[in-house]
Amino acid sequence: MTHVHDRAVIVSTGDEVTVGQLLDTNGQYFAQRLMSLGVLPIEHATVPDELAVLVDTLKRSCARAPLVIMSGGLGPTDGDLTRQAVAALTGDTLVLDGAAREEIAAMLAKRGRPMTERQERQAYRPRRAECLSNAMGTAPGLHARVESGGGWGTTDLFCLPGPPGELRPMFAGGVVPRLRLDPSRVIATRLCHIVGVPEAECVQRLGDLTRRDANPLVGITASGGILTLRIRAETSGARSDAEAMVDQAEARAREVLGDNLFGVGAGTGWENLCRSVLGLMAERSETLGVVESCTGGMLGEMLTTVPGASEAFVGGMITYANALKESLGVRGETLVRHGAVSAEVAGEMATAGLERLGVDHCLAITGVAGPDGGSDSKPVGTVHVALASRGVALDARKFLFTGDREDIRRRSAVSGLAMLHFRLRGHGSGRPRLIWEVS
Amino acid sequence: MTHVHDRAVIVSTGDEVTVGQLLDTNGQYFAQRLMSLGVLPIEHATVPDELAVLVDTLKRSCARAPLVIMSGGLGPTDGDLTRQAVAALTGDTLVLDGAAREEIAAMLAKRGRPMTERQERQAYRPRRAECLSNAMGTAPGLHARVESGGGWGTTDLFCLPGPPGELRPMFAGGVVPRLRLDPSRVIATRLCHIVGVPEAECVQRLGDLTRRDANPLVGITASGGILTLRIRAETSGARSDAEAMVDQAEARAREVLGDNLFGVGAGTGWENLCRSVLGLMAERSETLGVVESCTGGMLGEMLTTVPGASEAFVGGMITYANALKESLGVRGETLVRHGAVSAEVAGEMATAGLERLGVDHCLAITGVAGPDGGSDSKPVGTVHVALASRGVALDARKFLFTGDREDIRRRSAVSGLAMLHFRLRGHGSGRPRLIWEVS
Repeated sequence: MTHVHDRAVIVSTGDEVTVGQLLDTNGQYFAQRLMSLGVLPIEHATVPDELAVLVDTLKRSCARAPLVIMSGGLGPTDGDLTRQAVAALTGDTLVLDGAAREEIAAMLAKRGRPMTERQERQAYRPRRAECLSNAMGTAPGLHARVESGGGWGTTDLFCLPGPPGELRPMFAGGVVPRLRLDPSRVIATRLCHIVGVPEAECVQRLGDLTRRDANPLVGITASGGILTLRIRAETSGARSDAEAMVDQAEARAREVLGDNLFGVGAGTGWENLCRSVLGLMAERSETLGVVESCTGGMLGEMLTTVPGASEAFVGGMITYANALKESLGVRGETLVRHGAVSAEVAGEMATAGLERLGVDHCLAITGVAGPDGGSDSKPVGTVHVALASRGVALDARKFLFTGDREDIRRRSAVSGLAMLHFRLRGHGSGRPRLIWEVS
Repeated sequence: MTHVHDRAVIVSTGDEVTVGQLLDTNGQYFAQRLMSLGVLPIEHATVPDELAVLVDTLKRSCARAPLVIMSGGLGPTDGDLTRQAVAALTGDTLVLDGAAREEIAAMLAKRGRPMTERQERQAYRPRRAECLSNAMGTAPGLHARVESGGGWGTTDLFCLPGPPGELRPMFAGGVVPRLRLDPSRVIATRLCHIVGVPEAECVQRLGDLTRRDANPLVGITASGGILTLRIRAETSGARSDAEAMVDQAEARAREVLGDNLFGVGAGTGWENLCRSVLGLMAERSETLGVVESCTGGMLGEMLTTVPGASEAFVGGMITYANALKESLGVRGETLVRHGAVSAEVAGEMATAGLERLGVDHCLAITGVAGPDGGSDSKPVGTVHVALASRGVALDARKFLFTGDREDIRRRSAVSGLAMLHFRLRGHGSGRPRLIWEVS
């Protein structure tokens, strides 16, 4: 009798991650996919490319959960040690896998490259492990069964190559079909995204909903000006029961948060904010354009992460240099009198953009993103955002953001999107004040 | 006698990270800062907000290294358990820290908010721990000395609040002054970034340089079309010795890689590519504009992550809708005959942009980023990039990228920057073929 895969440890190997050169996006991907399958990730461990550390980490991980998913260390370089680590863990020798070697040779032939000794290394596997096909690259994955030392017997260890383009298809095609999911354990999760309320006030309004022993369990996270509620319901009943529990928690959150709760769904808060405003505009056949200075294209980039953004988003101008602001229609006199970072220039950027782009709404951003360029009257973090819409008064706001250049730019874009959200929701006059807004 | 802080374990707590909702950027920040101080991060562990798991992870981490740096779990909600975990670890009770309470009250007063019982919780600390001031928020940090069980005696455990804007100043002001750095151990590191060579070919050209037992140790990472070499030299001598070792390794890499090695420095590959091309253009007083379709502003956003980008980058157009492509100067006939995703339209976008923006170089991108919108003749991932420069023939290339929408867009932008890099380096005619380029 083998244990179901109810929880998992996620391991990443790579000096480039431990020393901080790269972010471990693979761990996040695994976690999201596992959650959607009802498997709870209970730890992520990231370790350097050192054999002893790898073996030790895999051993400890296999003792914590019946499922361990690892990425990295399967390539052709001398720093790739995952094969050796798994072999040491299971006490196996490494043997050449004929089928894997053929797949590598075929992949190389397709790219017009020769099979070298280095490439062939990737076809070795611990004797009792199996190789997982890699449709997108040369490094096969590995699947091994490991004595866990835990009460459940053996742990399934899956090792996948680090490049996300190879790892993702292998997870779907090689790992998921080998999982033993618990049919009697249902987890339903949902993310609700909120803007325009400070975290402490949000917690207060939610009351009992965020109690730690509740089911559904509601967690809250603040990131870049957006709050996200994580609702998680667990039941041994039907999926519909778990979903109903989540529905109920969401309904209560909507009741106390009103239009501050702008969206529900996977992804980051700002992705959801983009999806929400684009959806509202598409429903009404309205269009949006942007005119960006300090964000340099970030707002457009964020909006176009949403597939199908073109139904409402037409594009815009990146008026980084003042000459481009003038060629758009900002008056030279306004630039001289008030400076490029001013409510007046933001307003003219938005209204000129509305006309020139022929759109229903136009968001404009100008500010001091730093680290240089600040002054006493306009310190780093000073940003003016203006929203022009047909037939409605201009909404121009001044913000003072904290953080580094990236934070300031991201918050500028999010604040613009929040202004658009509240306008689309009809908060024209009694507009909610946004975090970081200054008068 | 206390041990020096030569290595560290990094811990993050937060359900939002273990379930994959958020990326652990704090771990990366700690790792980068520690490396720059000569402290080697040997593991990152990310765990959920559960008291038993937290205590267990902290205990294990303290047994692995004389320094443990943790983020998260210090806020006012019931899910914030770091204070309790540290108290359990050291066997201390939680006591109210008067000074910390005053700092919280002052911070709240500044924001016009009242001191609640919930806010006051943040002023509690394990009896023998000390609080670290938080200049940017209400949650103080913690510093505790923990019996490690390792040969070195006590481990210093630092706990910082999760929000990056609070954590970073606290690391600089509260953690760094309390570190005991080893004056006799010098680590010098450097990142070198490479474009236009496949990884296997790069490893081959580098030869012995990437041997695992070498000092300096050279690691290689591929990310989004750019390869990055991590050179790390360790010595007990002077900093200048370590730097000289790194210099030598870099010189050898430059010798075998030529103009494929485009830059040296911290940050991601594409950040360095942006910095490099902007620097070259600024030296020559040349300017750059962009015309973006499928990337929707991403190229402009990437270029403007570089402070001072305005010396060369003037801005551009986001011509997401075809109407905007036409209003820029793309002929309607070209759009109808070849379609928006074509070499012809990319070329007209670039040449029209060159004139309209009044720049020396203009990069244009049009493609199918997916997941929808592909066809047999133009599958998802088909992207045309064109570079127009004054007095030089247009460089237009077709790419077929793999991956998701985000990958395709990022690779499109990187490929455009690579084309600009090689043009600025004088590779006009014998232009290097780029990865993913198709004829």
